[in-house]
Amino acid sequence: MNLLRANTTIIGRVLLEEDAQPPALGEPVLVSQPLLPDLDELMPLLQQIWKRKHVTNHGPLHQRLEAELQAYLGVDTAMLFNNGTTGLITALKLFDLPPGSEVITSPLTFAATAHAISWNGLKPVFADVSPGTLTVDPEAAARAITENTSAILGVHVYGTLCDVEAFAALGASRDLRVIYDAAHAFGATKKGVSVGRFGDASVFSFHATKLFNTLEGGLITTPNAQDRDKIYYLRNFGIKNEEEIVEVGINGKMNEVQAAIGLLNLHGVENEKAKRRQLRKRYCEVLAGLDGIQTQPEQPGVENSEQYFPLIIDETCYGRTRDHIYDALKARNVFARKYFHPICTDFEPYRHLPIVSTRAIPHVTEVKSRVLCLPFHSGVSQDAVSVIADVFHSRR
Amino acid sequence: MNLLRANTTIIGRVLLEEDAQPPALGEPVLVSQPLLPDLDELMPLLQQIWKRKHVTNHGPLHQRLEAELQAYLGVDTAMLFNNGTTGLITALKLFDLPPGSEVITSPLTFAATAHAISWNGLKPVFADVSPGTLTVDPEAAARAITENTSAILGVHVYGTLCDVEAFAALGASRDLRVIYDAAHAFGATKKGVSVGRFGDASVFSFHATKLFNTLEGGLITTPNAQDRDKIYYLRNFGIKNEEEIVEVGINGKMNEVQAAIGLLNLHGVENEKAKRRQLRKRYCEVLAGLDGIQTQPEQPGVENSEQYFPLIIDETCYGRTRDHIYDALKARNVFARKYFHPICTDFEPYRHLPIVSTRAIPHVTEVKSRVLCLPFHSGVSQDAVSVIADVFHSRR
Repeated sequence: MNLLRANTTIIGRVLLEEDAQPPALGEPVLVSQPLLPDLDELMPLLQQIWKRKHVTNHGPLHQRLEAELQAYLGVDTAMLFNNGTTGLITALKLFDLPPGSEVITSPLTFAATAHAISWNGLKPVFADVSPGTLTVDPEAAARAITENTSAILGVHVYGTLCDVEAFAALGASRDLRVIYDAAHAFGATKKGVSVGRFGDASVFSFHATKLFNTLEGGLITTPNAQDRDKIYYLRNFGIKNEEEIVEVGINGKMNEVQAAIGLLNLHGVENEKAKRRQLRKRYCEVLAGLDGIQTQPEQPGVENSEQYFPLIIDETCYGRTRDHIYDALKARNVFARKYFHPICTDFEPYRHLPIVSTRAIPHVTEVKSRVLCLPFHSGVSQDAVSVIADVFHSRR
Repeated sequence: MNLLRANTTIIGRVLLEEDAQPPALGEPVLVSQPLLPDLDELMPLLQQIWKRKHVTNHGPLHQRLEAELQAYLGVDTAMLFNNGTTGLITALKLFDLPPGSEVITSPLTFAATAHAISWNGLKPVFADVSPGTLTVDPEAAARAITENTSAILGVHVYGTLCDVEAFAALGASRDLRVIYDAAHAFGATKKGVSVGRFGDASVFSFHATKLFNTLEGGLITTPNAQDRDKIYYLRNFGIKNEEEIVEVGINGKMNEVQAAIGLLNLHGVENEKAKRRQLRKRYCEVLAGLDGIQTQPEQPGVENSEQYFPLIIDETCYGRTRDHIYDALKARNVFARKYFHPICTDFEPYRHLPIVSTRAIPHVTEVKSRVLCLPFHSGVSQDAVSVIADVFHSRR
């Protein structure tokens, strides 16, 4: 044991008493890393844009990316947005939900899900998650329905799909719209059906932290081609033509440079996914046999979107807490993420709201202190995996 | 006269009976043309971004552009947005206006102004414009105030400044917030004071059609440094730190690539403005002495933002209508813009709303069929000016 290191305080890191091997990585390994096209490939597209001087307002690259995404995702409507939140807000606007009505959603999600409901003048109602999937428990959702409920906004958290059959039945029987926050689920399929075809609409995020990204960006998909016009109007100030404005729309348009980046990135997605599948395999191997460490369950017939690698760390079996592991990884220059912790109902704007559950204590309030997402992208080296393995297998 | 040309129908153009000289321009001249940086200058910044892999979420270029804009505009708070509409929506959110309260604004503006009010759950109330400036008439605004009025959203249309002193007095005496849609007024000053310092907040657009552009983009400025935190939270999901979300915020962030374009464009603004000043001079020369053609009035002590070159064409004096000129220019490949026509109260979402005026017939309903913006950017050649002069001086 190296006394000097053991007694040194390193700012922002937790120093392990035992000088474990291998040491911290030279470069920090972040939880995500954006897929970016080669600048050499991007340049000719930029030259085209600069020559046309058509830099936004549904330019040719925007149109091409939309068409390619529609084909890639196997949907009938695919409409680009400047970010996923604008997409969520617009998707909720699409169905003219009664002002002040209630939308049932998950507390285990990024705050944007709940914020989008609030920005529309609607009320978020939080329903507990199922232990198996961490997506909204259909029984809890059913219990949360009141006469003021207008929609369910399910979240395919970590790319684990919601119980889409249960929500379809619930939506049909209770006359509710079913919308999905599919920010984590780009490219996922269930029995060959694209995730973008479930419910009345789905919203994807193309933020830099997502597998497929346009720096910032989003997409609404629906299974109905007739939704295109209204989404188009809502995205572009309601402009129907030079003389008519038919909706109270906003500006949700993506510009041509981001569309160019998207077109190139889309061609790199399969390669990145293949590398992540390998990484998932390696992670599962090194974590296998550790009591109390649960990896993301495989769902029958579902192709994973390969966006996240979430763990549930049960300290009663494993002997150490999620926070301990998080700190120990950080000390080795590996930055995992307590995702999602806090949950929506911990935040000031939603703190007063209950979580509707079928249990005495909502499952989500227990699991939130146990979830951890490991770095998951092609930039995670074999050395990084070794460091992570070492941290998980260490006795301290 | 060339019989062949006189008898030819050209799709989408009105063919003049007389084959006037000079003929249509070879390349179309559009009403606006985005200022774009040299790709050679942009490339090193893109290389930096790609290397850092920090492509959004308030990256270093975003921070630098914000600081440079704050200095350039001489304001205490300058916060970037992904577009002007998100900026407007956020500026209205900033002051916690009572839900359902009324916001007085101009009908002579882009629909986004009214839409931003509606998206906040507030009610737009339209007040007539002053004949001199085409900005909201303070007397009409005063008449429009009810016990439910919470704010005035003035519009510096074409860069012509609102009567900021009158609105400051009205705001103070009636306890109303005064916010400005300054989309047209980037860089304007009055007696040396930046336009961004008037009222409680101002919102700029950096859309491609604007003098200073980031493809899409926007900015909120306020005269109070203490507004920064709340705008920051509203722009980024209300995130205060890793553990706290304190506002129902949205995603209004600009990405690093657009910030890079903005940094380079900002250095080109003064050069572009100088060229536009020359163009304004030439336009004024060729239009001088035409009865019924009124150019933008100079305002005492105001430095023009050089964003638009609006005309008012009074057909009773001039002998031909605005629409006639618009079509005649189009036939020569010059694309002017009937900006703003229709006005907000012509559009379906606002058609039921009256225009509060001190006149029997609101001035705006008369002027809307007379306004025309000529192409106004450094790409307008001397040949184009000659064609425009010819159209205006033609007897037909």
